[in-house]
Amino acid sequence: MLEQFHVPEDSAVRVSHTALLETAKAMFERVSVPHDDARIAADALVRADLRGVDSHGVSNMLRTYLSACKSGVINPQPTIKVLCETPATANLDSDRGLGVVAAPKAMDMAISKAKDVGVGMVTVCNGRHLGMASYHAMMALEHNMIGVCVTTAAPRVVPTFGAVPRMGTNPIAVAAPAKREPPFVFDAATSVISGNKITIAHRLGTKLLGGWVPDDDGVPIMEEVESPTHVMPAILPLGSTREMSSHKGYGLACVVDILSGILSGGGYGIFPGRPYNYHMVAAYRIDAFTDVDGFKGMMDEFLQTLKETPPAPGYDRVLVPGQPEWEMEQDRLANGIPLHEEVIQWFRRTCKEMEIPYVLE
Amino acid sequence: MLEQFHVPEDSAVRVSHTALLETAKAMFERVSVPHDDARIAADALVRADLRGVDSHGVSNMLRTYLSACKSGVINPQPTIKVLCETPATANLDSDRGLGVVAAPKAMDMAISKAKDVGVGMVTVCNGRHLGMASYHAMMALEHNMIGVCVTTAAPRVVPTFGAVPRMGTNPIAVAAPAKREPPFVFDAATSVISGNKITIAHRLGTKLLGGWVPDDDGVPIMEEVESPTHVMPAILPLGSTREMSSHKGYGLACVVDILSGILSGGGYGIFPGRPYNYHMVAAYRIDAFTDVDGFKGMMDEFLQTLKETPPAPGYDRVLVPGQPEWEMEQDRLANGIPLHEEVIQWFRRTCKEMEIPYVLE
Repeated sequence: MLEQFHVPEDSAVRVSHTALLETAKAMFERVSVPHDDARIAADALVRADLRGVDSHGVSNMLRTYLSACKSGVINPQPTIKVLCETPATANLDSDRGLGVVAAPKAMDMAISKAKDVGVGMVTVCNGRHLGMASYHAMMALEHNMIGVCVTTAAPRVVPTFGAVPRMGTNPIAVAAPAKREPPFVFDAATSVISGNKITIAHRLGTKLLGGWVPDDDGVPIMEEVESPTHVMPAILPLGSTREMSSHKGYGLACVVDILSGILSGGGYGIFPGRPYNYHMVAAYRIDAFTDVDGFKGMMDEFLQTLKETPPAPGYDRVLVPGQPEWEMEQDRLANGIPLHEEVIQWFRRTCKEMEIPYVLE
Repeated sequence: MLEQFHVPEDSAVRVSHTALLETAKAMFERVSVPHDDARIAADALVRADLRGVDSHGVSNMLRTYLSACKSGVINPQPTIKVLCETPATANLDSDRGLGVVAAPKAMDMAISKAKDVGVGMVTVCNGRHLGMASYHAMMALEHNMIGVCVTTAAPRVVPTFGAVPRMGTNPIAVAAPAKREPPFVFDAATSVISGNKITIAHRLGTKLLGGWVPDDDGVPIMEEVESPTHVMPAILPLGSTREMSSHKGYGLACVVDILSGILSGGGYGIFPGRPYNYHMVAAYRIDAFTDVDGFKGMMDEFLQTLKETPPAPGYDRVLVPGQPEWEMEQDRLANGIPLHEEVIQWFRRTCKEMEIPYVLE
């Protein structure tokens, strides 16, 4: 059902992730992003493409980030300031820098703090869009830590009983390592559906499923509808209706606003001063609680048991969080990342304009 | 709609929370719980009643806890052991002690660690049911901290696409202080509806709403149904169906299993060895990130703005997390806690058996 958001194979060109990484890095450098930062930013985008999260990869976000760097909405050469620091915490002002660079730097700091005292938790204010939230959470995995990332977005989601958007889609990402199993990676908007999926459906004019959006008055629409073309629809919180506990999705969105926006001193979802985004990343050192090997072994058992759950009629298997993305990553590492012909043309054109060698095909 | 789970006023007797607290405390002492622990346990239960969370208060949980103390399922005089400790973390073995006592002690430890290094995060294994999760999270408020509590429960929730329960209702609670507004208190099962609400509907034979439970094969039932009487129904994750993102509720339930059960070295939801419960509590010191006064002021603005959202047709106002419970608490502090006649009779009988003065009426 969500495959509609992937590029159809017959209009796609498969490109290697290393070529895509080099190209994206060079493009970031052309808009004045320093070399090391450009590498981080390109890696975050390409990792999203590898994992099948196309909405947060090069085709959807690269041009947005590049034009924001050119226009000054994003500061390509920020000076990140530490506003507050304790052994386990920090609050950073990212100086309007690329979120895909500031968040990994904040996560590095959280990991370092977790090495010292068991937990590291770093908030970021004065920030910009950080791409795929799980990219930052997953940074903890190789350090035998659990990683967390939450971030606010511009208001598109109505509160339960509300007629007007008040929160962003405010995703939560949590990553935890296993031993033989691929890592557990949860990454989800606290709205019923991500903002990018609504945007794409709106652009393509495809149908919106029941429970995704409210009508103009805020009443949840529970049957399939054409996406309105006159206006971008608002989005319902996870749970869709009060009866199905939309107050839980709404409450979780508030938690994200509090832990990133308000705790960083930046602002909440509908605070004036957009396009600010606020982030919180955290790392929990596993051996600050329990034996790492025992933890990973138990993660294997847990994930295997979930996968072996007898499926309901009509489904052939039960998935675990991060599994579809991991399977996609294996395929795309081996066979390349499918990019839509329109995206390929944009790369050809932009490489030429920026005088970057075109190496994607 | 959820009012059906409160006691109807015409079959209720209003009792004072202080009399209820003294009575519950004395009862815990009679089943060998030490004096100080009995006070904590009684306070946790009565606070749930005050906040209108009757499912986790004296009428529903007190007899369960007392009989478990008598049968030995709960150890009334546990020796809590620190299995692992760093400046920001600890993992405790609660020795099968009352969760309503172990969790506050773990939270005290988390708060103390947050005072020292900014964050405190404490897991608990070998545990028992901890009552209303937000009780423990709210302990952080008076210290100008954000409080978190998650806990696992016995498997009742099916994974997305799954036919058999694999996770508990695994609630998440987060509390954050405001200045003039009542605190933000989020407390919700990651299932579409809490286990106790299904149990009560099952017991009373009331209807279950669409999106709450799967049929015997695991297929979500999307229309209102009679609660089956032959078997306790399984519960759907928050989101109800894949199309409305039940994989998010499912994933959040897994996160709770990982952060409490697996990180404590205890076990995941379907691990053999129930009735174990596993907990994680955390405290984040606000001034380890930003100015406390600024944080609280911005919380006020945030909560006020949410409350002032224009309501959708049919609703007179938009609520914020913790607001209905706070309003209930003001009423019940002033006018007493309504207990069902059956519960009153149980108190009369049990006070007599235990030779405790009956002071509720």
